Amino acid sequence: MLSQTVEYALRAIVCLANESPSAQTNVQIAKVTKVPAAYLSKVMASLNRAGLVHSQRGPNGGFTLAKKPDELALLEVVNAVDPIRRIETCPLDLPGHGTRLCPLHRRMDNAIKTVEQAFANTTLAEVLADSNGSKPLCDTSNNDTVNLS
Amino acid sequence: MLSQTVEYALRAIVCLANESPSAQTNVQIAKVTKVPAAYLSKVMASLNRAGLVHSQRGPNGGFTLAKKPDELALLEVVNAVDPIRRIETCPLDLPGHGTRLCPLHRRMDNAIKTVEQAFANTTLAEVLADSNGSKPLCDTSNNDTVNLS
Repeated sequence: MLSQTVEYALRAIVCLANESPSAQTNVQIAKVTKVPAAYLSKVMASLNRAGLVHSQRGPNGGFTLAKKPDELALLEVVNAVDPIRRIETCPLDLPGHGTRLCPLHRRMDNAIKTVEQAFANTTLAEVLADSNGSKPLCDTSNNDTVNLS
Repeated sequence: MLSQTVEYALRAIVCLANESPSAQTNVQIAKVTKVPAAYLSKVMASLNRAGLVHSQRGPNGGFTLAKKPDELALLEVVNAVDPIRRIETCPLDLPGHGTRLCPLHRRMDNAIKTVEQAFANTTLAEVLADSNGSKPLCDTSNNDTVNLS
């Protein structure tokens, strides 16, 4: 339901945040995020166009986050690559329905709205600070504390 | 976010409910739902395979609902044609994450879960009985009551 492109874009953004303030090349991001490099470069171009990342050429070039993690809602990342489309008018173009959706399309739109709100209300900083689980992109399997109880 | 196929399948199911108990041919459903006939026949085949509609050949043949509207959750229709896929294991295959998702994938899965629950908790009968709005698939623009106040 959430596209592969959305998944990849969120991985890339998390990768840049984890490595901040160092710039990361497409190849470096591809390695950490396990996204095919050609696919990733399209995703990065979309993020760049949306103003979410900076791109700089040169020996120390690469991508950096253009926003602070606490000012970057996940919804901005989603909408930069594969925008969430609400149902705003009757998909059947029935004149009597118009923008006042029938019960079927109202329910469908409400479902889409809950996803939109969930991503709008979550910042990148919140995802990074969430300690209730493993760290995004980082394998911590070798760092588990030993349970002595 | 919800695919065209999901939208079409829900229209077709509502169409059959509106015309019940009469069987509806692919051509009849296509006309009411405004779904291209070739696309619709694939959707109907999926609904048939999932046991949500009956198909009968012959002069009075066509499709009918295989379940009562109050026993048919919208999620069954969605999952018959384009299943909602939850994130159950780490998409990066990180051993340390496994089925205990990191904060990023947990949030993504939670968003998907809200949609799954919304469709699981809504029956076709509820959509049909909802009087707070126009009737699905039916254009009521010429049937508005005159407001004399």
